[in-house]
Formats: sequence, structure tokens, C-alpha cells
Amino acid sequence: MIPNLSPDVALAERLFDELRTRSFDGVGITREAYGPGEAMAHDISTREALALGLEVATDFAGNLYMTLPGVDRAAPRVVLGSHLDSVPQGGNFDGAAGVLAGLAAVSGMRGAGFTPARDITVIAIRAEEAGAWFPTSYPGSRAALGRLRAEELLVQRMDNFRTLEAHMQDAGFSPDAIRAGARVMGPDNVAAFVELHIEQGPVLDAEAIPVGIVTGIPGSRRHRKARVLGEYSHSGAVPRKYRRDAAIAAAELAHRLDEHWGRLEAEGHRLVCTFCELATGPQSGFTKISGEVGFSLDVRSVEREPLDRMFAELHRLVADIALRRGVTFQLGPETSSQAAPMDAGVIAGLRAAADRLKIPAKVMASGGGHDAAAFAQAGIPAGMVFVRNQHGSHNPHEAMRIDDFAAGAAVVTQFAASYAT
Amino acid sequence: MIPNLSPDVALAERLFDELRTRSFDGVGITREAYGPGEAMAHDISTREALALGLEVATDFAGNLYMTLPGVDRAAPRVVLGSHLDSVPQGGNFDGAAGVLAGLAAVSGMRGAGFTPARDITVIAIRAEEAGAWFPTSYPGSRAALGRLRAEELLVQRMDNFRTLEAHMQDAGFSPDAIRAGARVMGPDNVAAFVELHIEQGPVLDAEAIPVGIVTGIPGSRRHRKARVLGEYSHSGAVPRKYRRDAAIAAAELAHRLDEHWGRLEAEGHRLVCTFCELATGPQSGFTKISGEVGFSLDVRSVEREPLDRMFAELHRLVADIALRRGVTFQLGPETSSQAAPMDAGVIAGLRAAADRLKIPAKVMASGGGHDAAAFAQAGIPAGMVFVRNQHGSHNPHEAMRIDDFAAGAAVVTQFAASYAT
Repeated sequence: MIPNLSPDVALAERLFDELRTRSFDGVGITREAYGPGEAMAHDISTREALALGLEVATDFAGNLYMTLPGVDRAAPRVVLGSHLDSVPQGGNFDGAAGVLAGLAAVSGMRGAGFTPARDITVIAIRAEEAGAWFPTSYPGSRAALGRLRAEELLVQRMDNFRTLEAHMQDAGFSPDAIRAGARVMGPDNVAAFVELHIEQGPVLDAEAIPVGIVTGIPGSRRHRKARVLGEYSHSGAVPRKYRRDAAIAAAELAHRLDEHWGRLEAEGHRLVCTFCELATGPQSGFTKISGEVGFSLDVRSVEREPLDRMFAELHRLVADIALRRGVTFQLGPETSSQAAPMDAGVIAGLRAAADRLKIPAKVMASGGGHDAAAFAQAGIPAGMVFVRNQHGSHNPHEAMRIDDFAAGAAVVTQFAASYAT
Repeated sequence: MIPNLSPDVALAERLFDELRTRSFDGVGITREAYGPGEAMAHDISTREALALGLEVATDFAGNLYMTLPGVDRAAPRVVLGSHLDSVPQGGNFDGAAGVLAGLAAVSGMRGAGFTPARDITVIAIRAEEAGAWFPTSYPGSRAALGRLRAEELLVQRMDNFRTLEAHMQDAGFSPDAIRAGARVMGPDNVAAFVELHIEQGPVLDAEAIPVGIVTGIPGSRRHRKARVLGEYSHSGAVPRKYRRDAAIAAAELAHRLDEHWGRLEAEGHRLVCTFCELATGPQSGFTKISGEVGFSLDVRSVEREPLDRMFAELHRLVADIALRRGVTFQLGPETSSQAAPMDAGVIAGLRAAADRLKIPAKVMASGGGHDAAAFAQAGIPAGMVFVRNQHGSHNPHEAMRIDDFAAGAAVVTQFAASYAT
């Protein structure tokens, strides 16, 4: 029987405060991947782990492992954690909450004199914010899992155009090990990975539920740099039938694809479809018909079918609108990612932990991508705990109540203690 | 009986060449309103008018009058002309073609020894390109017609923020006369005004007709700076029902209003509706739902009913979309202009002239605004002759064949000689 274990929420609060103070950029929080902000957060974590008497190690990619030894040191471990980097002018909790929940869990165990059956490792992962720094998914966790391809070391950080490899070297790590196929974690030595993360969306807050248990991380199909080309001309002098108006062609595409999304939802599918950017070109101006529009499109779902049906409709609409309106669509390269279902056993364990603690928890799909997807794709049983938050994420107004964090961390602590037996 | 009179096309060709050479800016043609480019064009016109033995005068606003005296000097005159300014990096023909057609007409009359019954005055009007220089309609012609309001002297030229009044003073003219209510032309002393202008649209070219005879200049209803406000959030983490997506709200508005335009056209109305600019805000980015879109809307028609029906639909859609999508529309100030029908007698005279010369001419509405609207609104019988052109206008690729110009100028010459009897 597992004792009643409480996470050390006071520790987490203290570290949230220190992280905020030391990474406030005047507007929000900035912790650059493989830059000084992330390094500072790793240093704080190392210091605290050593103070807790944990075993501390860093891998060739800079990921930090802080281990509470278990009874059976040879048994596959339970890994808890998330990332410590942030987007520029972001919030304090996106990523860091998962690492501090892990430290709070093992600190709680230490305080209670509890020794788990297996090792419990808190991991601080590098460079998760792909949209902000390195345009590749989860390079830190995938390096540790032996799944980062050598050519991905050459992607350039978006703000300074230096490669991932150069940044790893500058920070004192060893990208050569990645080229050589090194691996730290896999199904052979990790029994489960659990990542606590703020929800980043409004669902838990709207439904007044503190915690979410995640069923899966969506896959995506995307066009980051699409264009519609028409013909610039005089808005007064060109009658309807002679127009090649890129603005109205793009508007029709966006509106009709949105209507298709509505039909798929009515059928019971769950997905999101976003025209993130949509803008007439630099030569546009008042009293001119627009000859060019740029747009980006992001479609995501845990299911494959709605993704493919949205893209079939996209291609049908593009052909139809191009013909009807005399414009050309240049969708550019499509990028995509596979959905990552969370492990049924981990989901059941997290639900049982929440039930035992009488913490209301909503079983729900993730909206965004997370390192847990990389673990799941590597064959490791993975799960996620969402914490209710306010004002979304990736912005300075991102907020989270500490009581909600405590509830999520309690579920993680209970799960880790139970799963490790 | 009026003799067969031909316009002096060689004169016009020579002056087109000189204007092009002296106002080429490296990309296109630039003749700034009340700036050196426009002044140069006025100087060339003055020189040629004097060489032709015309009477030359300039009014308090800098408009240039070049008069071939008629038999009855006291009779209301016929006025032919257009403007000599251009947009930045524009074309050579927009405006100048109307002035050179007037000079070609009176030079042809002089060459044939023809003395008209009334004075024929070629006018070179100042500052017509309101979208490029001074954001007020037709300040040059309206000043001469006694219809420029004193407060309009304070509008600022868009590129240097100096007032219209300061520019008039710098160029040696007398804006004080405008404040004092001065007037040069009116129904008492002008029998008709005819403006030749390139079409600026593709209709004549598509229908293989060299000349258009204009029925009217459209009125407009416009929003130059409208916005949709929603909420920036994570494109993955926010389900459909929680979104306040400004991009899709703007796209739906544009697409549905375009569909309404299609319905009005199917009923037989003629109008144009353009979302000239439509762009997600500066904080937008990939993987973000857009919280702000700016757009500009330009609706024009010679008829009042379709303008009002489009705006009724605009207001209905804005209310509906705002409620349904959780966004706010800030349409900003509406600006509008009255349609200006051309005079039935002038239209009949231009048609008779084209018929006599066996020049195919399409009776059509104008798309853009022109100084002729100011004359019509002042109660002067006004008409316009369009010349087929290629590649629109307001761009360096604007083109016109000299044979088409010759056809249009021949109609103007024939009309002026007949109307002046």
C-alpha cells in the first residue's frame, strides 16, 4: 500500500518565483533554447536536485536527469518532467510547471521518507519550443531517445541563423554523440513518462475542472507559407467578371474550409483548423484590387480521418476557386506530424490517482504538441496531466493558480509512487 | 456645316514623349501634385499653347486655361481637358491624355483655319490624384468651380504632411482667393466640359472597342480603416466553440459580401465591391489564432440603390458574425461620394460625333472618379471619352495605343467643333 504522499508545493512556488525574477525580459518571460535563459533554469534545477540529494546527470544534448533512487536500481524507471525553455515574451509556467511538479513529487517522497520500488527520474528537457527557436519538433527529448536525425542538427535557430549543432557545442554538449546514434532512454529502461503541463487552452477553466488527463497529442497537416496570386488593378475600373482578386479568393477559401470543419465536428470528429496569418501583399492599398495574399494554415487532430478530409476539401476548394476567380494558389511545402496516443495503462493509472485523491479530472485530448509525443513515438508508455490555466500560453498574460498546480502535482506524485511499485 | 477636322496627333505624340522623358523616375512616371513634376507638365503645355497662338491664363489654384477664341467671345465656352499630375511610379497617360487631346483638337482647328462659334478652352487641372497626394477629391477643379471649402485647404499631402494651402502658396498661387469664395467657371460661362481619359479598366480592350462614352461617374461608400477584434490564442489548444478568431470572421464577412454583390449583379445592378486590404495584425504568427484583422472596403456604383443594399448587408453581416464568432467589428468612419451622371446632351453629342466618324464606341459607366464629376456636380453639362488601354493605370505598365488615342481625340475634336456652333 502506498502511503499518502504530498508534493512539495512550497518548493515549486519558490522556484517559480526565482525563475520568473531571473527570466523576466521587461514584457514577459524569455528562456531561449540552448541560450542563457534555459541554462539559468537548468542551473536552478541542478542546485535544487543536489540539495534534495538526488543523483544528477546531463546527457550529450544537455537534458538534465535528477534521480531519486528506487529499491531496484536495475528496473526500468519512471520519468517525470517537461521542458525549461520558453517562447520570447512568453509565460512562466509553459514547460517549467512539469519540471517543478517532478521536483515537488520527489521532494515530497524524500520528506515522507518514501523510497520507491524503482528509480524516479525528474527530467528537464531542452529546446521544446520549436515554433520559437529551432524549427524541428522536440529535438531535446528526441536526442535522448536516439531519434533525432543527424541532418536535423543543421536546422538554424530562427533569431540568429546558427545551427542546432553549433548551439549544443557552445553550451558544452556533444552533438557528435547524436551523429553516432547515442541514446539515453528507451522502452528497455523507462517504464513510463508523465508530463505535467498547463492546458494552454480554455476548456478546463470554462468547465471549472482543475486537472485534465490527456488521451493523445494531435497530429497535424500544415502549410506555413502559402500564397494566392491574382492581379493588382483599380478597384473602381475593373468589373466583377474581369477581376483576379487574391483577397476575395483567400477569404472564400478560409470561410469555406471553416464551414467544412463545422460539418466534420457535427459528425462527431474533433479537430482544429486555423488560418493563423492571412494578409494582402505589400503592394496592396486603398482603391486597389489585391494581386497577392499570403496565408498560413494549421490543421490538427488526434484522428487521422478528419485531417485527411480537411486536406481533400482544401485541394478541391483551391482547384475550384482558382478556376472560378482566375487566381493561382501556391500552397508551398506541406509539413505534417503524426498523432501520438497516450498509453492506456498510464491513463488508467492517472485516473486512479485522481480518483483516490478526489481531484476532479477531465479526460481530454491535447491541443498542442508536447515532448510526451516523442516518448510515445519511441514506444515508451506516456501520459500527460493538464493543469487548468488562464489566458492561454505563449504570452505574458499566461496564468495558473497554485492550487490547481498542487492538484496536478498531487496526481503525478500519487501516480509515480504507485506505478513505481 | 462643320468641316472635317482632324486632331493634331503628331503634336500629342511629341508631347507624350517629352512628358515621359522628363517625368520618368527610374521605375515609372511621377508628377507630384503641386510639385516639380506637375509644374514641368504645365510649363510644357503653356509653351505649346503660346506656340499655337492660344490665349493663356492661370487661376488662383494653378489651373491652366489655353483658349482658342471663338466668333462670339461672350458666349459660354466649351472646355476640354483633364489633369497633369500622376500617382508615384504611375503611367504617362492617366490625366495627360485628356490635356493633350484638347491641345490636339485646337491645333487641328487652327491648322484647318477653323474658328469655332464660341471659345474653346483647353484646361490643365491641378492635383487630381487624391489617393496619392492630397486626400480630398478634385481640389484643383473644385477650386476653379468655387466649390472647394476653406477647411479643405488644410488637408496634408500624404508624403510630406504639408497642407494644400502651403503647397499652393509655394507654387506661387493664391489660396486666399479660395477662402474669399472666388470662382472661375460655372454654368453661366461654360457650355460643356469634356474630359478624355484612359479607361483604366479592361473592358474596352476585352471587347475590342477603341473608345468609350461615359454615362456617369460612380458614387462610393467606403471604410478605409476597419478592424475586427478577437482574441489571440493557441491554434492547437482552443477548440472551435471557444475561439474568437478575427481572421475567419473577416474572411466570412468578405466572402458573404462578395456573394451579395453577385446576387445584385444577377438582378441587373452594376457596382463593384473590393476588400482592398485585409490583413491579420502584427502580433499574428504561425500556431496562433489571430486576434486582430484590419481591412479596407470600397463599394462603388453609379446607382444609389446597390450602394445602399450592399451597406445594409454589410451591417447585417457584421452584427451576425460578431454575435456568432465572439468578435467585435470597428468599421471606423464611413466616407462616401455622390454619383455624377454625365449630361444627356453631351452624351448624345459625343455619340453623334463617333457615329459621323465611324468610330466604334461603347456607352459605359466609369469605374474611377474624375474631374468631370466636379463639373457635373457644379451644374455644368459634362461628358467623358474613354480611350481603350492596357494594364490598368496607376502603375508603370499602364499602356495605350496611339491609334486609340487618335480615335478618342477625333471624337472630342468633332464634338467640340459641333457643340461650339
